Amino acid sequence: MAEKRIHNFSAGPATMPVSVLEEAQKELLNFNNSGMSIMEMSHRSKAYLSVHENAKEGLKTVLNIPDQYEVLLLQGGASLQFSMVPMNLKVANKAVNVINTGSWTKKAIKEFKKETEVNIIASSESQNFNNIPSQFSIDPNASFTYITSNNTIAGTQWHEFPDTGEVPLVADMSSDILSRPIDVTKFGLIFAGAQKNIGPSGVTIVIIHKELLTRSSSQLPSMLNYSAHVENDSLYNTPPTFSVYMVSLITNWINSQGGINRIDKLNQDKAKCLYDLIDGDFYQTPVEKGSRSLMNVVFRIRNDEVLENKFLSEAKELGLMNLKGHRSVGGLRASIYNAVSQTSVNALTDFMQSFKVKNG
Amino acid sequence: MAEKRIHNFSAGPATMPVSVLEEAQKELLNFNNSGMSIMEMSHRSKAYLSVHENAKEGLKTVLNIPDQYEVLLLQGGASLQFSMVPMNLKVANKAVNVINTGSWTKKAIKEFKKETEVNIIASSESQNFNNIPSQFSIDPNASFTYITSNNTIAGTQWHEFPDTGEVPLVADMSSDILSRPIDVTKFGLIFAGAQKNIGPSGVTIVIIHKELLTRSSSQLPSMLNYSAHVENDSLYNTPPTFSVYMVSLITNWINSQGGINRIDKLNQDKAKCLYDLIDGDFYQTPVEKGSRSLMNVVFRIRNDEVLENKFLSEAKELGLMNLKGHRSVGGLRASIYNAVSQTSVNALTDFMQSFKVKNG
Repeated sequence: MAEKRIHNFSAGPATMPVSVLEEAQKELLNFNNSGMSIMEMSHRSKAYLSVHENAKEGLKTVLNIPDQYEVLLLQGGASLQFSMVPMNLKVANKAVNVINTGSWTKKAIKEFKKETEVNIIASSESQNFNNIPSQFSIDPNASFTYITSNNTIAGTQWHEFPDTGEVPLVADMSSDILSRPIDVTKFGLIFAGAQKNIGPSGVTIVIIHKELLTRSSSQLPSMLNYSAHVENDSLYNTPPTFSVYMVSLITNWINSQGGINRIDKLNQDKAKCLYDLIDGDFYQTPVEKGSRSLMNVVFRIRNDEVLENKFLSEAKELGLMNLKGHRSVGGLRASIYNAVSQTSVNALTDFMQSFKVKNG
Repeated sequence: MAEKRIHNFSAGPATMPVSVLEEAQKELLNFNNSGMSIMEMSHRSKAYLSVHENAKEGLKTVLNIPDQYEVLLLQGGASLQFSMVPMNLKVANKAVNVINTGSWTKKAIKEFKKETEVNIIASSESQNFNNIPSQFSIDPNASFTYITSNNTIAGTQWHEFPDTGEVPLVADMSSDILSRPIDVTKFGLIFAGAQKNIGPSGVTIVIIHKELLTRSSSQLPSMLNYSAHVENDSLYNTPPTFSVYMVSLITNWINSQGGINRIDKLNQDKAKCLYDLIDGDFYQTPVEKGSRSLMNVVFRIRNDEVLENKFLSEAKELGLMNLKGHRSVGGLRASIYNAVSQTSVNALTDFMQSFKVKNG
């Protein structure tokens, strides 16, 4: 099977480690000698509960999450968090502060506004989101301050997180969680859809400081109440058991690779290969140097769509897939999440060099 | 692999057809010669969109869903529907009418009350939910009437649905959808978590009459708005792609078995084997004859917990698993969803007969 696989630069759902897929494949009809698939087990069974615990503990270990935080395994993706976050964390007579870095922040703002007052304290929209703003002042009266840590469409990433003092910092880390070490104590809440670095789509991670749990009103729908999910250890209802299982396999894989620091180093190396090639007269990126994403490398070929389509078509023939930029911005994009190997990146840079020689 | 599998009577997540699991296993690293797992594909890719469409069309075919209904593939399980249903369908100055048939109805009522006024027009709670009420009057002024079509814990099932006239009938069919033909036109909305007859946990089916979509306010969070999901063909955000893929395989499997009428016949045969044995002086069921579930056969052995524990322990040795009743009611329960074979039921009834001879 594995030898037929292509080089997958999809922005998400994204490529997964082959060894993880092979393990899931091997035990798909018979998990851990139970005679059942993990999909066929009660979520109250010992076998599943151990997987559930492993997924949570795996995330805690990889991200070095302190004890004053709870880790939740929920459903609905980042898009449901855009509503759950303000529903749970808003404070009467206080506004939410947002630093707007792209499409995903804008989607969050749209949902926040249905629940609370929103102040956009900084935005790079007038520069087509080609940078992460560095000038802004944190309002000490905000209910929380909100950022998107990595922007898959614009290709930008926060490399240093803002200090928000007593105001909880909330981050959508869907597209770069588990890619680098983070200081969790800087955050009040972190959430992430799984489908980039954590597992398949359908499971959503929430890391929340215990102090914030008191903000959840008991009048909230139970499924939208962080406090209810904490009380039930993310088993208020049937969790997406197969996806949680995949999270446990992925966190095991990260540890087997040497942990988050090693993953970070590999990610930096991969991104450097691409950015080194892109800063020339053939390939260019609109993204400012200090703001470039290590996950999503956005680039163009002389703003020439015809040449870009030729690039995509020749890449495809070599098994270099999913390199088209997001439909809203065009151009090219190589998403190089944790599971994209250096081998795949080398195959891409080799092709890019030869394409440049032939068409430059 | 398959020969090591046990007889799985789990109430959910529940057993799946072996051929479906084998197909998923075979292509887990390479879906349809794409060189990727279905989990690794963009939800906007042609390959995934075809799976998404197949899952929807499969449901429409199996359930004979008319064109005036939309089929949605969502997240959050029945528990999130307990909030989405009233949020979207409530009408100013009208109450929701509920017929209370057990724990799951009670959980729905708890969430409904956060959103709207609730009138319980009938309930079998005083009889420990051992029947489906047959005496009630439908209030023509209700915003909708709500029922749970099958009750996994009490072991009861609606065999004839109430006629609610102009009032939309809403049903939680989580535990018996796809088990028998239904007249969809009797309903305004049907929802179901997947983990009994449809697929793995993590995907939720909603079937909604198009006329009801006008009730959804644009002020609702987008992820909780049926109308927004219809506009986006259940692709408002990244769907749980692997679970949707499994839905497509399961609906294919139902068709390969001869469709819903054949499945219904098989389910009736399986249930008859068990109920015939239970109506004696050794095994008993508290459930009234006209209300018995074809999916969850709830029974006791002379209300004798010691004997029941012996039964469970000997059953386990024979690979007859997950026969314990729900923790809230005790006793025994055999869940015999679509994918539980007549062979498994025969293995269980053989054991039950021999256990009765030895202990009767």
